[in-house]
Parts: sequence; structure tokens; C-alpha cells
Amino acid sequence: MDQSTSAFAPSRAVGRISSSAIRELLALVDRPGVISLAGGLPSARHFPVSETRRAVDDLVRRDPGVLQYSSTEGIPALREWIATRHQVRPEQVIVTHGSQQALDLVARVTLDEGDPVALADPGYIGAIQAFRLAGGSLVALPTDDDGLRIEALEERLHAGLRPRLVYVVLNFHNPTGATLSASRARHLAQLADRFGFLIVEDDPYAEIRFSGNPSPSLASLSDRVVSVRTISKVLFPGLRLGWMVVPDSMFRSVALVKQAVDLHTATLAQGVALHLLTRPGFMSDHVRVLQGYYGDQARVLCSALATEFGDQLEFALPDGGMFVWARVRRPGVDTEALLPRAIDGGVAFVPGSAFTVTEPHRAYLRLSFAAAPPEDLAEGARRLARTVLDGHRGGRRHPGCRAAPPPVDRYN
Amino acid sequence: MDQSTSAFAPSRAVGRISSSAIRELLALVDRPGVISLAGGLPSARHFPVSETRRAVDDLVRRDPGVLQYSSTEGIPALREWIATRHQVRPEQVIVTHGSQQALDLVARVTLDEGDPVALADPGYIGAIQAFRLAGGSLVALPTDDDGLRIEALEERLHAGLRPRLVYVVLNFHNPTGATLSASRARHLAQLADRFGFLIVEDDPYAEIRFSGNPSPSLASLSDRVVSVRTISKVLFPGLRLGWMVVPDSMFRSVALVKQAVDLHTATLAQGVALHLLTRPGFMSDHVRVLQGYYGDQARVLCSALATEFGDQLEFALPDGGMFVWARVRRPGVDTEALLPRAIDGGVAFVPGSAFTVTEPHRAYLRLSFAAAPPEDLAEGARRLARTVLDGHRGGRRHPGCRAAPPPVDRYN
Repeated sequence: MDQSTSAFAPSRAVGRISSSAIRELLALVDRPGVISLAGGLPSARHFPVSETRRAVDDLVRRDPGVLQYSSTEGIPALREWIATRHQVRPEQVIVTHGSQQALDLVARVTLDEGDPVALADPGYIGAIQAFRLAGGSLVALPTDDDGLRIEALEERLHAGLRPRLVYVVLNFHNPTGATLSASRARHLAQLADRFGFLIVEDDPYAEIRFSGNPSPSLASLSDRVVSVRTISKVLFPGLRLGWMVVPDSMFRSVALVKQAVDLHTATLAQGVALHLLTRPGFMSDHVRVLQGYYGDQARVLCSALATEFGDQLEFALPDGGMFVWARVRRPGVDTEALLPRAIDGGVAFVPGSAFTVTEPHRAYLRLSFAAAPPEDLAEGARRLARTVLDGHRGGRRHPGCRAAPPPVDRYN
Repeated sequence: MDQSTSAFAPSRAVGRISSSAIRELLALVDRPGVISLAGGLPSARHFPVSETRRAVDDLVRRDPGVLQYSSTEGIPALREWIATRHQVRPEQVIVTHGSQQALDLVARVTLDEGDPVALADPGYIGAIQAFRLAGGSLVALPTDDDGLRIEALEERLHAGLRPRLVYVVLNFHNPTGATLSASRARHLAQLADRFGFLIVEDDPYAEIRFSGNPSPSLASLSDRVVSVRTISKVLFPGLRLGWMVVPDSMFRSVALVKQAVDLHTATLAQGVALHLLTRPGFMSDHVRVLQGYYGDQARVLCSALATEFGDQLEFALPDGGMFVWARVRRPGVDTEALLPRAIDGGVAFVPGSAFTVTEPHRAYLRLSFAAAPPEDLAEGARRLARTVLDGHRGGRRHPGCRAAPPPVDRYN
């Protein structure tokens, strides 16, 4: 009966998920000589550092209770602020450790193994992981410039699909950058009411809009909506602070699970977020600066891509967010296979395959303009073009760069 | 096909857990006129407030990167400090949002629905919830003054029990206060190696020891151990900062799930914890102060209980931790039924039933000496004795206290 040498046997839940390219790529961000257009890190130069220092100093000095345990749902003043913003009651709000935790919570309270969850393909990696971990069976839906193609969902519904959840990103979907049009939002809300599924609406980039029209919140159109939000893009991610607004009938279940997974969201982080979100005039000024900055960055990258690639790369100047989703116009191209050579040539991106629900998206790549200095965006586009176009012609290497590609399993 | 009125249907996972008394009781802590001996809140007067302010100021000023995303496993310097302390490699360490999250992670990577998990009855509520949520089937083990009765576990193993996990608290089990003896620790480690289960060792109160001998870490005795830790009791809980040390074979699974549930632990919280844990001389001084304080508090409460109850209450002066686990020596007593009257009489406690695995522990109550001022501990003991002894005689009410008890489902 000696089992001391038996290996750890993972649960079935673990077997459902695999490592994400984003996680593995975070390790590359600091690699010297590599311009990263890969990671989704927001610009650290725009973090409100002195405001944050003052907030913590103030909070901790005034009340050591910000270092104490607090209630599972979140601190009352923050829940109230969130409720006002969403035009709901505070009793529908739960503060979470980032929107990723909100996705995990909604998945755990709604999904049994095999339950269908419909979402865009390519899909947001964090949502794919959370739904798979909870046992969701993913159903891929097509997208275009107006976001999720709701008429394709309707066809599937008429053909018998009964999803528990439909996940949708309102503004600047990651990776496609598309915003759900108002007419599609209305159509989706009608379908939810008619077919009895729950909509999970995520909207991390709403404030980072530099042109075009925002998507309306689905919560204004249907009661069958869970709204998931984060402060990571508009303030900073290092607090892990987000929230969810849920229908009344779901609230107790979500609170119970939240309590079992980490008791409550860090009290100090909630205090800091509340301080920054409610400081008179601060957020509107800060958001204006971010919009200007990210808009400039997007234009620099897109202009450089146009110059370097000519018509070899298909993409649109985004209306907001942090990413360009681009298609290489070459038959048989495989961006995942190109990535090690690109890093070898001094530039990193995320290949389309990282966002796979069912399609491999081999001709696509996601480029972030969020954090690199403008000159690096231009140089990154140059290196990328050299890799992609040279790669097609047979692979000359960028002079002066490392010869050895990193292990292939980093990009799975 | 109109389902718009259909209620939210919770997943099976939600159905496995129920509200915990600790959560509901947190709401009572601030109720005016009620002396709370219920919640497990550490003493906020002993939080290192000025150290923390300085730490944040220093960290944010030096590097805005503490507000940025960071790696799923934790920041390298903190993982190294933890590894040194546990005498393991940093590659075995994952930083978590409190030890509660560590429990949830170990449950999710090891348990399929119905897998047996053995633990003490009465049990730690957080562990019970995490294991149940992940589908674990709880197996109650008896305890005594030397902690979990390992010979009872061995009997069950010989009778065919094959647990995936055995959960054990090393020092000052919550609620019993017992410390696992060194000989039982060795015995448990041998059984793990022989029968192939994994030990989850939790140890939140180790530093809060004011007498007696500590339990050895099981990780020094077997490779089949996951160590779960928190800084909540020795620093403060409001950061939600803990960690786990796992066998190599488990590491990747835990990291994958951690990434899917909240990407990573808050970067700023990790920075603050590291700053405080590594500041020369700080922790040893701080821990000495805590030991003196909690030891005094324990003596005040126990002395008052002895005075007020005489031989009507059975308990031992604890060697550490924050709780007294006491048995009311009256046939047919039901502490859960007494609680609303106790609150009505101006004192709160946690009834034994809150810690049920299978036994109801109706004669028991858990009293916290952590946070109430000494005069409140004495007065709390007086009010408690009046409720318990009067209750037995037919229930006179404490003069000047509210008549209406709170809703009963608060104590489920």
C-alpha cells in the first residue's frame, strides 16, 4: 500500500484549462532588447502615483480599520458609489479581486460541467479560462466590426442551443477591438429574455475611447445581465480591484462563493479605489489624459504598420482600448510559428492562436500600443515587418539579436 | 419559449455550501452595546500603522511598478523570503489572497466531486467551505488536547477510507485551540506516505504562542504536504495576503488555476508584506508585543469565566491563538439557541454548531479574547454567565438591552 512515489493527480477542473500565452508572455516583457507589443500592461507612466500615496497615508492614519477584515460583499461606501454609477441598488454589488475574479465567481455560481457558454471567437483569454475551469462547454460565435454577430447566435438558439451564459465585451473587445453596436446590444438583450440565458457583460476599456460611439450597457436593456468591471485599465492593475453587479436572485450565491474563495476583497485596496474614484475632478482629468495618450499611441503604431507593411497587413485604427488586431495577408502564414523568430528579431506580439475558442486565427496577431514609447512602437513595427516579410522570403535574422529562440512551449 | 421570469438556477457547487456563522456575525461586531466575543478579528490597536504608511510611501515613490500587473506566482523577492523561511525552493511558493484562497486553490486542483477530505470535527469554517465548494466529501475526525486524533484516522484508513486530503491546523486549532503533538505529527506524516493522501497544513496562529511547545511543520516530515499560511494574524488581514508551499508536481496546476481565478495577488500588497516581514528587527519586536498582549487577554477572559461560571463551564487557558473553546456543563444545553438571548443580553459568541462537520457541538461555544478591551472581556463573561445560567433558570433579560433578537437565520 506504499504510494509515496505516486504522482500528484490533478482534478478534472485542472485538466480543462491550459497555460495562456499572456501569462507566459509576461515573462518576456522585461527581456532586454525585445520591444514588447505583446502584454496588455497599461502605461505605468500614467499611474496616479502621488494621489495613491496620499490616499494610503490618509486612509491608514485616519482609521486602522482599513487594515482589518471587512465584509464579504465589499465596503459600504464603495458599493454605494458603484451602485450609483450603474443605477442599481448597493445590494446588487460585490467588490472583487479584479474582473477576473468576477468572471470566476459568475462561472462558479452558474455552471455545471458541460453547460454551454457562448462567446466571441477569437475570445478574451481570461474569460475562456474562467469558464473552462468551472466546466463550461464553450460555443464559438463569429464577430465583425460591430462586435459579436448576434444573428449568428439567434440561428444557433433556433437550432436548439441553450447556453447558460453569453459573454460579451461591450467596448474594444480584446483582441479584436470591436465595439458591440447599439442595435446588436438590443437584439442580444431580447434574446436573453426570450431564451432565458444570462448575459455576462465585461467592459474594461470603456473609458479609453478616443473616437466613435460607446456601446450601451446591456444591464439597461435586460434584467438577465451580470456586469463585470475593473479599475485596472483606468487607474492601475496592482490593487486587483474590480466589481460585479448581479441580479437580486443571484446575489446570495455569489456572496457565499466569494466568502469561500477569499473571504473578501482587500480592505485597503477598496479604500484606495474609493478615494481615487470619488476625489472631485480627479477622474475626469485623469481619463482625459489617458484618452489623449492612448489615442496618440494607437496612431503612431498604426501609421508605422502602414508604412512598414504596405498592404501586407490588414488592420483598422481602433477607436479605443490598447490593441490592434491585424491579419497578415499571406497565404499559409502562421503567426504562432513566426513568434520565436520575431523575438529573435527583437519584437514580441501575441499570435492569434492564443485567443482560440475553436478557430486557430493563424493569420492574426495582437499588437499592444499601451506601454511602449512611441519610438519603440515605430521600431517594433519595423522589426515585425522584417520578421514577417523576411520570414516569408526565407528568414534573415535581425543583426545583433540573440540567436536562440526561447522554448517553444512558452507560446502554447 | 419565454423564460424571462425563470429564477436564477444556482450551480451544484453553490448548493454544497451554506452561509457561515462567522460571516453573518461580522455584521454584529459594530452593534452598539454588544460586547463581541464572537468574531476572529485581530486587535486593530496592534496593527503596525506607521510602518505600513512608510512602506507604501516608499514603495510607490521608488517604483510605480508596484501598481502594475505582476506574475501569477507572486513577486520574486517575496517568494524567495518565503522559500527561505520554509526551507524550500522559491519555485514551490505561490502568493495568494489570504490563506482562504490557498485552501480554495488546493481544493480545486485536487478534488473531484465526492472525493473524501478528512478533518477535525469541530472544524475550521473556512476550510469546511472551501472543501465543500470544490465537491469534497467531508470525513469528520475526533480531536483532543493533542489535536487531531491520528490513531482514529489510521483506523479509518485500515477500514478502507482513501482521503484525497487530510486537513490539519498545527498550532491553536480554530475553534478548539489544540496544538498537534509532535508524535501525532510524525504519525500523520507516516500515514500520508503509506496511504498516498496529501496533507494540507494550516498554521495561522503559530506566532501568537504565549506558552507550551509548537507543533513541528509536517513539511519537514513528508513530501506529501501543502503548507498554507497567512499574515492576517501577525500583521493585519486587510491586505488579504497569504501563501502556499506545494510539492513540485502540483505547482503548475496551482499556478494555472490561480491565474484563472484572479490573475495574481495584488502587487502592492505583496510589496507591503515583504517590506514589513524583512525590516531588520521589526517582526521579532512586533511578535513579542503581540504575544504579551494576547497572553494577557487570554488570562483576563479565562479568569473572568472561572469567576462567573464556577464549575459550570469547562475550558482550558490556551497556550496561544485568539480563542477559548468552552463546554457548558448543563444537560441539554444548546448554545445556538442561547445566542439570540445572549446578544439581547449584550454579548456575542460563536455557538459550537457553526463548526459542525457532522457533530452539532451544542454544548460548546467559542469565545474570542482578541480584540475586546480587558474590562469588556470581564463584563462579557459576566453577561454570558447571566444568559447561560439564567437561561437555564428561565430567561430574565439583561436590564437596558434591546428586546428584539436579530433574525434567526443570522446564526445558521
